[in-house]
Amino acid sequence: MLSKPALSRVCIALAERSYDIVIGMDLLSDSATYAGLPKAETAMIVTNATIAPLYAKHLENALKTHYPRVLQVILPDGEAYKDWKNLNLIFDALLENGCDRKTVLFALGGGVVGDMTGFAAATYMRGVPFVQVPTTLLSQVDSSVGGKTAINHPIGKNMIGAFYQPSLVVTDISTLSTLPARELSAGLAEVIKHGIMADWAYFEWLEANMDKLLQGDVAAMAYAVRVSCEIKARVVSLDEREGSSGIRATLNFGHTFGHAIEAGLGFGVWLHGEAVACGMVMAARLSQGLGLVDAAFVERVTKLLIRAGLPVAGPESITPDEYIHHMSVDKKAEGGQIKFVVIDKPGHAKVQAAPNDLVIAALK
Amino acid sequence: MLSKPALSRVCIALAERSYDIVIGMDLLSDSATYAGLPKAETAMIVTNATIAPLYAKHLENALKTHYPRVLQVILPDGEAYKDWKNLNLIFDALLENGCDRKTVLFALGGGVVGDMTGFAAATYMRGVPFVQVPTTLLSQVDSSVGGKTAINHPIGKNMIGAFYQPSLVVTDISTLSTLPARELSAGLAEVIKHGIMADWAYFEWLEANMDKLLQGDVAAMAYAVRVSCEIKARVVSLDEREGSSGIRATLNFGHTFGHAIEAGLGFGVWLHGEAVACGMVMAARLSQGLGLVDAAFVERVTKLLIRAGLPVAGPESITPDEYIHHMSVDKKAEGGQIKFVVIDKPGHAKVQAAPNDLVIAALK
Repeated sequence: MLSKPALSRVCIALAERSYDIVIGMDLLSDSATYAGLPKAETAMIVTNATIAPLYAKHLENALKTHYPRVLQVILPDGEAYKDWKNLNLIFDALLENGCDRKTVLFALGGGVVGDMTGFAAATYMRGVPFVQVPTTLLSQVDSSVGGKTAINHPIGKNMIGAFYQPSLVVTDISTLSTLPARELSAGLAEVIKHGIMADWAYFEWLEANMDKLLQGDVAAMAYAVRVSCEIKARVVSLDEREGSSGIRATLNFGHTFGHAIEAGLGFGVWLHGEAVACGMVMAARLSQGLGLVDAAFVERVTKLLIRAGLPVAGPESITPDEYIHHMSVDKKAEGGQIKFVVIDKPGHAKVQAAPNDLVIAALK
Repeated sequence: MLSKPALSRVCIALAERSYDIVIGMDLLSDSATYAGLPKAETAMIVTNATIAPLYAKHLENALKTHYPRVLQVILPDGEAYKDWKNLNLIFDALLENGCDRKTVLFALGGGVVGDMTGFAAATYMRGVPFVQVPTTLLSQVDSSVGGKTAINHPIGKNMIGAFYQPSLVVTDISTLSTLPARELSAGLAEVIKHGIMADWAYFEWLEANMDKLLQGDVAAMAYAVRVSCEIKARVVSLDEREGSSGIRATLNFGHTFGHAIEAGLGFGVWLHGEAVACGMVMAARLSQGLGLVDAAFVERVTKLLIRAGLPVAGPESITPDEYIHHMSVDKKAEGGQIKFVVIDKPGHAKVQAAPNDLVIAALK
């Protein structure tokens, strides 16, 4: 690539909680990126042991222009550490350093760091500002956008959390150059999801450009990140708190089955995106079982996921009973009845219950 | 008393988060009290080991009319247990019983139960409805109103929490008949606070009626609870999240010194109301030191607190340095500078910083 993709800006419109996602190259280390943020004595970077050596110093230098004191907390890397014990490392650091209610937290890393930092920001002194600086494709197109924050409980993923919006999302496409291939693929699962559940033309663009994306073409990547953020922004602006309209719940396409895989294997064995990819194939098959889509649709979805380097068959160690058990504690469940996100036509999703035999058939 | 005080209703006006406080006799056990609440499969009563034998069965019976399943979690009693470990008992019970996102939590007890249940409700599956059923005077006039929820951190009180409003507050004056005298006095500290910082005529009414209140006269008690709730409702409606206006922060009159006493002695040694009483004398003395009020005002405040059975001198074991240290992690502190709520005329408070020598002089 000779030319840098232009800076783009996607607004999450939520009245007084509105904020921008800025998308571009080399944003993270540019102090101008952070110019409009709330003023404070202290900024605290929360990151993990993998990302810290790559980007923490760059972010720290950029923030020093704006904040007299820039602190760091380094968490262990991985979904298995997304628990209260590690969340408490953030609270300990904030309190031991006498951080006040104006302190701005910066989540530098992937989805786990973003979810934990966001939840810490939501609850430290009943709420301090925070900024998402996602460094993985998955967090750039999904978890950094929309204000869902959480930690896991041994019985279920993301069971303890809050809706809490960041002040800004800094999506620096250049960070994807250091992303391992497996994590790139995991991110592509959520990218493909956006096409399937909200924009079939985007799905077709992804079919045409998958090779470029896998090769790390920054222009293609910047386009995919922007369109995915736009789709998510539209959905979140209509239904911030996953209300009874069911609009936001459609973003969970593939996630009911996917969470069951993650819980069944133990969090962190499969990457979230891998579990979601497999879950999307199951949910597509369930949609077919319900007579909403045809076999060709399921085939086409499966094929693109395979091309993206993602698993499309569940681990053999999880039994159908275990799937049903894990899915019944899903947050969409009501009175014990599991609700599924299904596709009623390519590029459009809805939420509904489904008979157990069709669900089990969809597991294959 | 021959006649029952009439039922009264105080509205907390917060747009879509508005709710009522209903105040009266024998409300807790009356199923009609709960008629307007959100429908759900499950209600969960969270209470403590002291309150459970007194009222849990009554509440359970009343709720059974509305909810097919009524569960209970019993926490240990006391401020010392207001931590993550005990909060987790609530999450464990919710998840082990497969409680969904519509489950309604009922906080039956004093401030600790209310704060913990509220925080559990704020964060379980990113938010479920909850109802406050305060059974102590302190929680009826203060902690059940306004949506502050939290747990303690070893370094500071209420450091981890959320602003999260209940759906209803059920203030049953009859429960005060079982309240130990020491806890009645602790509640009177917050009642007296409302007079000092917001309504001097109310302070004068309290001077005239303190004997009745100490004797448990239900008409006097119902009046005091209602006026205190009205004062708090007015303040909270103007400034829900303790914003930069400083309006809500004035409700913390006496609390900066008070929290330092609680932290210095170890949480739970003194009751919160006792620490606040003593803190109010210190804050009144600081206001005098700043030239805002005269010695007669300090004297009058001190005298009423003594009549209410409250301590007005700090524990000798806490040194001035320890006070300053504990106060510097107060949530009102900014950039290390402690902010105090001071009285600028009887019945009116404001927030400001103060020179260290005056603060130390106020500790006496």
